[in-house]
Amino acid sequence: MMQTALTMTQMIERAEKFFPKKQVVSRTASGIHKFTYKQITERMRRLASSLEKLGISKGERIGTLAWNHHRHLEAYFAIPCMGAVLHTINIRLSPQHISFIINHAEDQILLVDSDIVPLLEKCASELKTVKAYIIMTDEKELPKTTLSPVYHYENLLSEADPTFQYPNDIDENDPAGMCYTSATTGNPKGVVYSHRGILLHSMALGLADSAALSEKDIAMPVVPMFHANAWGMPFAAVWFGTSLVLPGPYFTPKLIAELIEQEQVTITAGVPTIWLGLLKELDEGSYDMSSLRGVLCGGSAAPKGLIKSYEQRHNIPFIHAYGMTETSPLVVISNLKSYQVGLDEEERLEIRAKQGILVPGLDIKVVGQNGEVQWDGKEMGELCIKGPWIASEYYHDERTKDAFRDGWLHTGDVVTIDEEGFVKIVDRTKDLIKSGGEWISSVDLENALMAHEAVFEAAVVAVPHEQWQERPIGCVVLKEAYKGKTSKEELLDFLKPQFAKWWIPNDIVFLDDIPKTSVGKFLKMSLRDQVQKDLLRKR
Amino acid sequence: MMQTALTMTQMIERAEKFFPKKQVVSRTASGIHKFTYKQITERMRRLASSLEKLGISKGERIGTLAWNHHRHLEAYFAIPCMGAVLHTINIRLSPQHISFIINHAEDQILLVDSDIVPLLEKCASELKTVKAYIIMTDEKELPKTTLSPVYHYENLLSEADPTFQYPNDIDENDPAGMCYTSATTGNPKGVVYSHRGILLHSMALGLADSAALSEKDIAMPVVPMFHANAWGMPFAAVWFGTSLVLPGPYFTPKLIAELIEQEQVTITAGVPTIWLGLLKELDEGSYDMSSLRGVLCGGSAAPKGLIKSYEQRHNIPFIHAYGMTETSPLVVISNLKSYQVGLDEEERLEIRAKQGILVPGLDIKVVGQNGEVQWDGKEMGELCIKGPWIASEYYHDERTKDAFRDGWLHTGDVVTIDEEGFVKIVDRTKDLIKSGGEWISSVDLENALMAHEAVFEAAVVAVPHEQWQERPIGCVVLKEAYKGKTSKEELLDFLKPQFAKWWIPNDIVFLDDIPKTSVGKFLKMSLRDQVQKDLLRKR
Repeated sequence: MMQTALTMTQMIERAEKFFPKKQVVSRTASGIHKFTYKQITERMRRLASSLEKLGISKGERIGTLAWNHHRHLEAYFAIPCMGAVLHTINIRLSPQHISFIINHAEDQILLVDSDIVPLLEKCASELKTVKAYIIMTDEKELPKTTLSPVYHYENLLSEADPTFQYPNDIDENDPAGMCYTSATTGNPKGVVYSHRGILLHSMALGLADSAALSEKDIAMPVVPMFHANAWGMPFAAVWFGTSLVLPGPYFTPKLIAELIEQEQVTITAGVPTIWLGLLKELDEGSYDMSSLRGVLCGGSAAPKGLIKSYEQRHNIPFIHAYGMTETSPLVVISNLKSYQVGLDEEERLEIRAKQGILVPGLDIKVVGQNGEVQWDGKEMGELCIKGPWIASEYYHDERTKDAFRDGWLHTGDVVTIDEEGFVKIVDRTKDLIKSGGEWISSVDLENALMAHEAVFEAAVVAVPHEQWQERPIGCVVLKEAYKGKTSKEELLDFLKPQFAKWWIPNDIVFLDDIPKTSVGKFLKMSLRDQVQKDLLRKR
Repeated sequence: MMQTALTMTQMIERAEKFFPKKQVVSRTASGIHKFTYKQITERMRRLASSLEKLGISKGERIGTLAWNHHRHLEAYFAIPCMGAVLHTINIRLSPQHISFIINHAEDQILLVDSDIVPLLEKCASELKTVKAYIIMTDEKELPKTTLSPVYHYENLLSEADPTFQYPNDIDENDPAGMCYTSATTGNPKGVVYSHRGILLHSMALGLADSAALSEKDIAMPVVPMFHANAWGMPFAAVWFGTSLVLPGPYFTPKLIAELIEQEQVTITAGVPTIWLGLLKELDEGSYDMSSLRGVLCGGSAAPKGLIKSYEQRHNIPFIHAYGMTETSPLVVISNLKSYQVGLDEEERLEIRAKQGILVPGLDIKVVGQNGEVQWDGKEMGELCIKGPWIASEYYHDERTKDAFRDGWLHTGDVVTIDEEGFVKIVDRTKDLIKSGGEWISSVDLENALMAHEAVFEAAVVAVPHEQWQERPIGCVVLKEAYKGKTSKEELLDFLKPQFAKWWIPNDIVFLDDIPKTSVGKFLKMSLRDQVQKDLLRKR
């Protein structure tokens, strides 16, 4: 067979040649803009040409601090295809972490949205490698800024070569992208994506048994493009000629619902928090969601009630999946098997609420206290993954040795796997509650609590216990209408029939909100500290 | 990213772990047999173990002479995954060519169906490298044979290790399979498939925009497993947990129709000749074909009338595709683009009758008399292909230099490509009719002739002409009911409104049949010779 490289250039070129008429709808600060792939792919060539003129050479990192819009999409392809590395930076991190990341990656140029300029200005004095800032603005003039030197994205493009030729000496294992993932302690950890990894992951997104992304789709990644490449959706979409809708900055559930309706979105992707918000909007408003063939949900486990509400109340298929920054991210996805389709509604929901089965191309194993666990849906173990779109290390980081061992990524996620191979996340290894030598899943308890009509959000954390080592405590945010009207006893009674006696939390505390990470996950460590202090104070 | 190899072992293991309950229905000489993937994958391990015991080592070729059935499927995986090379041999070739192929590939062992033993006995004295014959029979006893030494497939398996561990040192570029393709002149040419090529091609078959092969499918490859790996369908099916129906030897259109109905086949694949036969059966009989979501057709161009009959008369989606032994084979596939779905029926049919657009992962170009052709659906040129599942050479064959040049496979197929990128095969370079400095497509004329109600089959060939260099002659086989009742004038008049005047054949000759290759393609060279002789005789 030919030794042609699996590089991203072919992905652009397919869109350019076969799908020039297809559309990218981009929402920016100034409103909705529409482009064809003919325009977008020409702008990609212009951007690559501009970067070359600015002196960027092979393997150098270019950072982006940007929302989901067409210019960010252009950077997604122009940077790797001109031989450099697309470094997407999570703008929800602290200025300290952002400075760390930019210095650690040695970014040469930063592409930044105008509204993010003030954040970046706070970091600028710390930055050691950045030679230029390119501001991605709709305005004719650059905003006033202390950043220097600054360039105007559109001015650069207007002076650039629309026929720029991408180099053909890129190896499929060359770095194409990178993204830092926040760590529980210490600085964020960098993950490097190769051309090969991105191409194969894109292929996986197109499989009929996976997300089945297709030219016929109108895809809207709501998950930020600064987070795990918006789950790879922009890459795959361009390759397949899929129309894209990019929802831009500061969107609301209302705006998401309107975009889906107006642009006839067929598939969208985001974290449970987004879908909780949209659900409320759909329940209260009146929208036509009939174009949607699927809502892809990952990032953290979606409560069963959420899946049920989407499917039964709004007739929107809800596709549960699992992955992480280190895994590009798609690893498992919850499509029913052919012979499960005939099961009754509750049984099907039970399966769909799991994260799903392995996508073709990867390998997984689940390692418990005594080696690989039984596939019985009960025994818990840590999920380990390998495959061509799984990171092999953290970039220049000694924490590599903790997570990457014996050829496997040890995810730190505790799961069960059932007879049919469906993986269910039950906890993070560090959030598991170890009570009397047994494991209690905080996630199972949280999902059960969140199924109660009064509960808006719930987290369960461990507190130290003399006799049992650790015991669970429920932390609950009640819905507005239920505040002051729902007791902890009522919630505990609600849990009792659902779990073994020793799983029931020792206490419930009511909170106004639950602290979260920049990507919307519960910050359990700080929650645990807070709960422990509160309990001590009450003694 | 991890450097995990794209090898076929992971494809078996996914079926083994995630789809043990799924089914393989196999028709052999003794009837229908059903196996689960649990059984089949265990038998694969046993076969690999047997081959190891027989002394097979890494990289050695094992030949198969077999129909489509479960044992052949077992060989499809056991041989490459134990490190050897699966060499599928076209049993429709002459004994001379079969002997040549086996010697040229240096096959060490041959796996052969009992009914093919007599054919192989004719070759045996010529074979230089074969150390053992394994007979794949349902019977308890081996058939009487002069082959030696012979083994009984089932006996070997019963004594073998069901927990055999596939080696983990296979490189993704190691050879996994090979297949010889018949040449117009001289001996067949060998194509070697790598693990990487087979895996990536399988992925392509699963893409929503391609064949969308899925766990939910019940797939029946009618195309022989000795021909271009049955278009890769068995490989992809096992990986995805797709149920398989393997129709065995000597099937009839009636049997194909019955299998589709009984086994609820959702997708099937074969050459136009098969679908012409099935169409007749469906027109005359009464079958429930409602399970079928697609009939995949390739190997040669399907006449528009055939596509129309399937879709309009029987409501069976007909998926036109193109590929060749050298391309694994999938290259282009004819799915409408999203914005073409609204076209009227005739326009859609016009597009669907083309071979389609490029599958993600490959690259194509069309080279005419003056470089790359316009994408206008008119200018003709040779289709050139490159990509990771395209052969890079003919195995130990100096004809490599004719077809593989500048990193591209020059297919010898003349095509047009339209504004939307749909490729249409118009001819083989050697079958093009060059008249007065212009090109005439024999395939276009053939399809037009075959759309006439009286015509069963038609081929158009060039004969030398003093003034115009070459002129087309139509060779027509009439349907039984029309024989003696349809004149050449009637057929020529039928063509006239459809083509430029200079395209109209100079003559029509009526034949009883059209000579074909072992894979059902028109043998144009011998037809041309025959027609020329006939015309000379008539002068």
